[in-house]
Amino acid sequence: MSGISLDFGNGGVEMQSFLQTFLPKFYRGEKWGNFENDAATFPIHDGKTLCFTTDSFVVDPILFPGGNIGDLAFAGTVNDLVVMGADPIGLSCALILEEGLDEKILEEVLKSLANLSDKFQIPIVTGDTKVMEKGSIDGIVINTSGIGIAEKILDDSIEVGDKILISGGIGEHGVALLSKRFDFQTEVVSDSKPLVSEMKEIRSLIKWAKDPTRGGVAASLNEAAVEKNLELEIWDQVLPIQKAVRIAGDLLGIDILTLANEGKILCIVKAGKSEAVLEKLKKYNSMAAIIGEVKKEKINGQVILKTVLGARIMSMPSGKIVPRIC
Amino acid sequence: MSGISLDFGNGGVEMQSFLQTFLPKFYRGEKWGNFENDAATFPIHDGKTLCFTTDSFVVDPILFPGGNIGDLAFAGTVNDLVVMGADPIGLSCALILEEGLDEKILEEVLKSLANLSDKFQIPIVTGDTKVMEKGSIDGIVINTSGIGIAEKILDDSIEVGDKILISGGIGEHGVALLSKRFDFQTEVVSDSKPLVSEMKEIRSLIKWAKDPTRGGVAASLNEAAVEKNLELEIWDQVLPIQKAVRIAGDLLGIDILTLANEGKILCIVKAGKSEAVLEKLKKYNSMAAIIGEVKKEKINGQVILKTVLGARIMSMPSGKIVPRIC
Repeated sequence: MSGISLDFGNGGVEMQSFLQTFLPKFYRGEKWGNFENDAATFPIHDGKTLCFTTDSFVVDPILFPGGNIGDLAFAGTVNDLVVMGADPIGLSCALILEEGLDEKILEEVLKSLANLSDKFQIPIVTGDTKVMEKGSIDGIVINTSGIGIAEKILDDSIEVGDKILISGGIGEHGVALLSKRFDFQTEVVSDSKPLVSEMKEIRSLIKWAKDPTRGGVAASLNEAAVEKNLELEIWDQVLPIQKAVRIAGDLLGIDILTLANEGKILCIVKAGKSEAVLEKLKKYNSMAAIIGEVKKEKINGQVILKTVLGARIMSMPSGKIVPRIC
Repeated sequence: MSGISLDFGNGGVEMQSFLQTFLPKFYRGEKWGNFENDAATFPIHDGKTLCFTTDSFVVDPILFPGGNIGDLAFAGTVNDLVVMGADPIGLSCALILEEGLDEKILEEVLKSLANLSDKFQIPIVTGDTKVMEKGSIDGIVINTSGIGIAEKILDDSIEVGDKILISGGIGEHGVALLSKRFDFQTEVVSDSKPLVSEMKEIRSLIKWAKDPTRGGVAASLNEAAVEKNLELEIWDQVLPIQKAVRIAGDLLGIDILTLANEGKILCIVKAGKSEAVLEKLKKYNSMAAIIGEVKKEKINGQVILKTVLGARIMSMPSGKIVPRIC
């Protein structure tokens, strides 16, 4: 087909190549860094660093098991800041609404935003509201951008032998959303959650962190492997996956490692500190696990999934993984 | 009709009352201020202030005489920062694209963003791309958020006798857009423009500034009058309006004072400095003019339009002024 395809928006290879086409042409200034990261960084006073990030949320359906688009919009942007090592100081919230949208839905979404803002003491400080004619936009779209301040950006150099951890079960948001969209019964609910407390506890102990949203664990690990020229090995047998998530994945024929998570931290930790980090993460989620390790240096990187049957490459997801998952 | 109406998104009374319903419930933190302003403010080091703003652009059509949605998205957010007195340091850019969108259009939009970023040396440092299914969004929507740093936020106390100035002709963006939408011939092009240089020249001389976008000069003046409890008097006979804009306004039966401007500064200046500010503004646009003055203090404020026939209240715009003007 001609024109922009859905694949562009999935966090997979198509989006990567689309971004590569345009991004290098943009003026970058001298002070900013971390353009390819979850949040861009700008040095401020006393050695501190300002972090800045943006995300639009187009999730379908707007309300899903375990949350709504407002929960996602708050958690998604906060998480992009905290995985960099920053303390979020404020968010923006821009609403785009479809004419005729049920005010009850809007109220529920705004209530989620207000509750999370209150709970995590991160204010929403600036906003914008646009309305488009009926049929020009599907329901509600939210953009949240966020600012954080970091004492220290997480970017310690990763070494062979470092361990890879995840802070809980994989694929829960993806399955919760698909269950609503395809109308099948499951007990799985979205894991959408601001990871402020978890990251505060572990950030001094870890080298790198990422929230594996669009494209899931597979995309996040591949990005890290490519960027840092590493071969990462993941152990299939220890991956924390709820039974109901596994069943739903089989039912739908979808690789759980490519499904979005909206409240999980993927992190890389010095081997000697991995048990300490695991212990801290388990306080929040008993499914937290050490799932692999940094195997060797490798130009352009790769991710290997070791299973009982042998090893295979865990590729960067491509194609229509799941559109409008967040 | 039930549900959200287009009026909500127009910058008029409906949006004001909608925002009033929800905003007070949100947690605000202790350090942030200027929530109702173009950009929220946060004190940083050395007495400086961080400014943070967001805007979504849903303009229809995407390409219009004098620019495209990319020009608007850059200028709109930059202008929200500069009218506060800040120097923009970085923007985010989040694209939401319709499946099947012509890549040529996207390229033109991105080129505008890249060119303006380069010209004004304001980097776009973080971004996001989502794609929605054909029919789920109309073409392309852009959110830009922006960060700036101000030595001094513009908020000097306004006094009776202060003059009101505008930096050029009124209503040009609105008319340019409507000409394309309703397919009539006019020489008017959008005034979309980042006001970085203009504001840098005048900011030490002025007390207050605003870029009169959605809802136009009428909305911006009413907001100021209400917020500051002032009666503002505007002189109809000296309003700078291109002849072609006036003709289009008559043709369409639209009040030009409610039409969006995307590259104009409305400002309030001590009487003794008004000629100096006018002179500086005229270097950029010969239509810059002193258009009125602060008449008296008045609880809840009001704006009076003085015409040859007498005086009338210039109300806050309401209803479907022009949907999707920016």
